[in-house]
Amino acid sequence: MSNPQSHKPHDRLAAVLSTDMKAVNTMIRERMASKHAPRIPEVTAHLVGAGGKRLRPMLTLAAATLCGYTGPFHIHLAATVEFIHTATLLHDDVVDESKQRRGRPTANLLWDNQSSVLVGDYLFARSFQLMTEPGSMRVMQILSNAAATIAEGEVLQLTAAQNLSTDENTYLQVVRGKTAALFSAATEVGGVIADADEAIVKALYDYGDALGIAFQIVDDLLDYQGDTGTTGKNIGDDFRERKLTLPVIKAVALADETEHAFWKRTIEKGKQEDGDLEHALELLHKHGTLVSTQADAKAWAGRAKTALAPLPAHDIKDMLIDLADYVVSRLS
Amino acid sequence: MSNPQSHKPHDRLAAVLSTDMKAVNTMIRERMASKHAPRIPEVTAHLVGAGGKRLRPMLTLAAATLCGYTGPFHIHLAATVEFIHTATLLHDDVVDESKQRRGRPTANLLWDNQSSVLVGDYLFARSFQLMTEPGSMRVMQILSNAAATIAEGEVLQLTAAQNLSTDENTYLQVVRGKTAALFSAATEVGGVIADADEAIVKALYDYGDALGIAFQIVDDLLDYQGDTGTTGKNIGDDFRERKLTLPVIKAVALADETEHAFWKRTIEKGKQEDGDLEHALELLHKHGTLVSTQADAKAWAGRAKTALAPLPAHDIKDMLIDLADYVVSRLS
Repeated sequence: MSNPQSHKPHDRLAAVLSTDMKAVNTMIRERMASKHAPRIPEVTAHLVGAGGKRLRPMLTLAAATLCGYTGPFHIHLAATVEFIHTATLLHDDVVDESKQRRGRPTANLLWDNQSSVLVGDYLFARSFQLMTEPGSMRVMQILSNAAATIAEGEVLQLTAAQNLSTDENTYLQVVRGKTAALFSAATEVGGVIADADEAIVKALYDYGDALGIAFQIVDDLLDYQGDTGTTGKNIGDDFRERKLTLPVIKAVALADETEHAFWKRTIEKGKQEDGDLEHALELLHKHGTLVSTQADAKAWAGRAKTALAPLPAHDIKDMLIDLADYVVSRLS
Repeated sequence: MSNPQSHKPHDRLAAVLSTDMKAVNTMIRERMASKHAPRIPEVTAHLVGAGGKRLRPMLTLAAATLCGYTGPFHIHLAATVEFIHTATLLHDDVVDESKQRRGRPTANLLWDNQSSVLVGDYLFARSFQLMTEPGSMRVMQILSNAAATIAEGEVLQLTAAQNLSTDENTYLQVVRGKTAALFSAATEVGGVIADADEAIVKALYDYGDALGIAFQIVDDLLDYQGDTGTTGKNIGDDFRERKLTLPVIKAVALADETEHAFWKRTIEKGKQEDGDLEHALELLHKHGTLVSTQADAKAWAGRAKTALAPLPAHDIKDMLIDLADYVVSRLS
């Protein structure tokens, strides 16, 4: 997991930050406990225990450390960020009626929707308790704003995802909400807690924002061209769930009349037949939208790297640059 | 609604606090808006517009005013409390698969579970944004602790409600979580924002706690003996939903073998037949548990009134005393 020689930048980050990451994991375990309701740590442990890369809390630790902060409150903030993330995963799986997450059955499948909704609420509340502890108003504002933006992005996705008139701007708004808001809050609070200069805080925010957007575009792209073995996702899940993502939005914009009718039937009306996914993939290839979506992801990764320019030289800075490259390297 | 001559103490409170309540309503409308996701204010307006007594925000305003506070932050805190309450209602209706709330179809029925979960999350996040604005660490701790306790109580209820071994202590823990935690936080933050003496803050907390418990016990009792016309609830909903509440918990404790088997079949196993509700009601009457539950509710209302003793003479204090009586007067 935390191998300093790994070619994966998040493994190298995990190695450099391993003491702090251990402290974060300890705090997560402590704070997800509940004296009265044992179901809470059960459900949370299932999800937290399933691993995941702990990318978001690592970003907070990396940003704080890079700015010379030595603690202790970056641990609280990293744990806050992971709690918000875990709460949204629990609720997302209910909303999407998902059956698998990180290669394991989802909590809503193993327990029930009720437990996922309420344990998610508990983790949200715990995250708000945690974020008050450093006593920084600005940190609380950043993180509570992020939580609101995430929910807003998710609600927007509900109405936009099956609507063929959804354009790239709306897609970007959804992605900024559901994914990038927490990435940018994670990096920004690292700078704020370290009392870094405004230009540095802004740079960290911009990095998180662009990295989050790149990350989500790649995720949406892998849904159409990933390898199930490595991604743990099935090809075409978004298509089957009638979720408009960038490759399809681009293809709809370029569609002739027949193609438009195809997208209308399969995505908007949800009337899907055998062979539809294959035809959808043909259309994405025909219009080159997988390639142009990949170019977009790379452009966002490029913006993430450019954003870091104001930061001082630091081995963690180099790893954050590599991380931006790595996020899009999953595509090739 | 705000009739100063009404015999209902919450109407008199609403009349005395009408300027502030208007400010709270304006703030709620402003803060439930969303630039990007119009579904959010639609769903929220449906629930907020349905009225409800606004009891919780009124408690915050009453406590702050009683302590001599003249503003402006009691408005933010009252709106925070109402947002937390509304968020939990949205999620409760998903968890309970409810179809009616305040005499109108629930949001999960009119829209879908997804919207209720995500709009609830949005309101939670908005409540956290709001609670940071007064800049009081203690206020944030009280309200974020309340949010965690509410979720914990709801999760505990999930596992305890269909378990015949659930005793009165566990019931009290559930009730303290799901209902009393927000009542006591509502009154406590009113005192804290007014910078009242610790003894006064403690008195306000104790009042809210006892009032909330009385309120929930009455609610659970009305489920077995209410008048559908005035309560908007159907007799026996909790029984049909296999939710153990105090009258049944007391009856189970006094049950003979045959009766225990009846409760086991109907509540624990959920195998209900025609005539079961009538038989359940007979058992509650036989063991006098509706009467003894009513006595418990009155005792909690008494504790609420006693708790107010340290507070200075004030017309609002008198109304809070009357409110405690009124809460249990719904029973006769």
